[in-house]
Amino acid sequence: MKITVLGVGGMGSRFALMLHQAGNDVTLVDGWQTNIDAIRQDGIQANFNGKAVSAKMPIYSPAEIEKSGVQADLIVVFLKSNQLKTMFDQVKALIHPDTYVLCLLNGIGHEDVLEQYVAKDHLILGITMWTAGMTGPGHVELVGDGEVELQNFAPAGKDFALQVVNVFDKAGLHPKYSENVKYSIWRKACVNGTLNCLCALLDCNIGQFGKTKEAPDMLHTIIAEFAAVAAKEGVKLDQTEVYNHVAATFTANIADHYPSMHQDLVQHHRLTEIDFIDGAVARKGEKYDIPTPYCKLLTQLVHAKEQLIGAK
Amino acid sequence: MKITVLGVGGMGSRFALMLHQAGNDVTLVDGWQTNIDAIRQDGIQANFNGKAVSAKMPIYSPAEIEKSGVQADLIVVFLKSNQLKTMFDQVKALIHPDTYVLCLLNGIGHEDVLEQYVAKDHLILGITMWTAGMTGPGHVELVGDGEVELQNFAPAGKDFALQVVNVFDKAGLHPKYSENVKYSIWRKACVNGTLNCLCALLDCNIGQFGKTKEAPDMLHTIIAEFAAVAAKEGVKLDQTEVYNHVAATFTANIADHYPSMHQDLVQHHRLTEIDFIDGAVARKGEKYDIPTPYCKLLTQLVHAKEQLIGAK
Repeated sequence: MKITVLGVGGMGSRFALMLHQAGNDVTLVDGWQTNIDAIRQDGIQANFNGKAVSAKMPIYSPAEIEKSGVQADLIVVFLKSNQLKTMFDQVKALIHPDTYVLCLLNGIGHEDVLEQYVAKDHLILGITMWTAGMTGPGHVELVGDGEVELQNFAPAGKDFALQVVNVFDKAGLHPKYSENVKYSIWRKACVNGTLNCLCALLDCNIGQFGKTKEAPDMLHTIIAEFAAVAAKEGVKLDQTEVYNHVAATFTANIADHYPSMHQDLVQHHRLTEIDFIDGAVARKGEKYDIPTPYCKLLTQLVHAKEQLIGAK
Repeated sequence: MKITVLGVGGMGSRFALMLHQAGNDVTLVDGWQTNIDAIRQDGIQANFNGKAVSAKMPIYSPAEIEKSGVQADLIVVFLKSNQLKTMFDQVKALIHPDTYVLCLLNGIGHEDVLEQYVAKDHLILGITMWTAGMTGPGHVELVGDGEVELQNFAPAGKDFALQVVNVFDKAGLHPKYSENVKYSIWRKACVNGTLNCLCALLDCNIGQFGKTKEAPDMLHTIIAEFAAVAAKEGVKLDQTEVYNHVAATFTANIADHYPSMHQDLVQHHRLTEIDFIDGAVARKGEKYDIPTPYCKLLTQLVHAKEQLIGAK
């Protein structure tokens, strides 16, 4: 399959590498010139479960796409949510009438942006449990196991979605075709919608947050807001199961992990993805006339903090 | 008048000093031994509008009160809200059937605690615009002008409240008898209920917070919650006037000031008074079945932060 990976950070590198190793025609697009230069010279260099692996694939900056003539059967998106629109505006030329877009990003509402660039039945949504870390330009740590769950956004896309499952399976990405990927997306969004902003605002890791007396009530309230909005979109979250799923992280081996929003906001002073997590729920809540005050205040606090520290 | 000042920090020292200079019989009670020792040896030492002033008054620790035989006509309270209960449990012996308690603390709901120690008609509530700063044990900076507004909590207390106004007037404290001090208390609580916790959580000063895009909406929402609860207690806040009153601080000469909760939480890792500000509104909201999600979440975040930093 002719695949373009959009965003070659940790996770983009993992998917690119594994799909390339399985014989697919993989092209890379990234917005960070230093990363492009490193990959162009030496390829993606990975610690792949303890083994040094490297692989060369063509890589372009967004500005080079139009001239490059590159087009894709499948575009796999691994951008920051807040870069989605800017990037797609620049790489429109990648998309021909038969191009499908697979979005595995955390959060809610990416389809609202992607629909502006690709037809609904050419959109595939999913989540992934794979992890990946970047150690420098072109260098990644790919350790551990994972899986992918995906589903076509509109019924007509099912055949191609199954082809993607087949291609991913051969690449060892452990894909699963889901009959209700929206449920999985909302369920995962509840993890990010609680831990990400709370750990970022309180400047703590998951385990530390979980030890505060306030954690259970805050979790319950935020999850209830997510569930009320999800219900309007046809997703009936099991709030008790979701609560237990989130609370399980407090004592799991990721308890000492600082969620990505903490890394973005506190550690690197970057703009966050809050508008695609709690912010999306607050926006949808307003649209559906459902009160989502916790999501709204958390979004406001994160945005205020971004401005106070001059996040970019 | 036989007056006991409970809590001899900056503001307690100001009131003690000014009341003492006007010829009242002032006794001090404080919980900080180093402060007691300093005042016992050299008196309260003040920079009083540029003039060095010192004055000796008897001072006791709470534990010494019972043996001391000290009783008061008027107890003026300048404790941290969260110390109120512990302190009054220790100094009960100060209170005889004719003792009045004047509470000028910021926040809401102190009467709920004080009613456990003194009859409603012996309770006087108020606010003050005086400022004061402590520079060390026994040493205070008393600069600038101020005023006091007070009213008896129950009708029967009016005569004594007017006597207090008279005594305060002679001491230059610029008192005003108020026909509706509850309004003033709620109005002032809106300033503290917005700026205190938000500046503490976002780690910024008043002017910096005021420059964020989110400030107006957060202020409006919090003030609306305060107003809804206040209405249940017979106080009809003018929300637009209160909003303008709070927002005026963003560009006033206190814009570069870090509110006391920022000092407590961020600078000194002390427990905050949130339970007597936003926390009180959230508690009362629950009691009256009025939604106060912003007040509740802000209270939870401040308490979580207290635990995370080991505040004491």
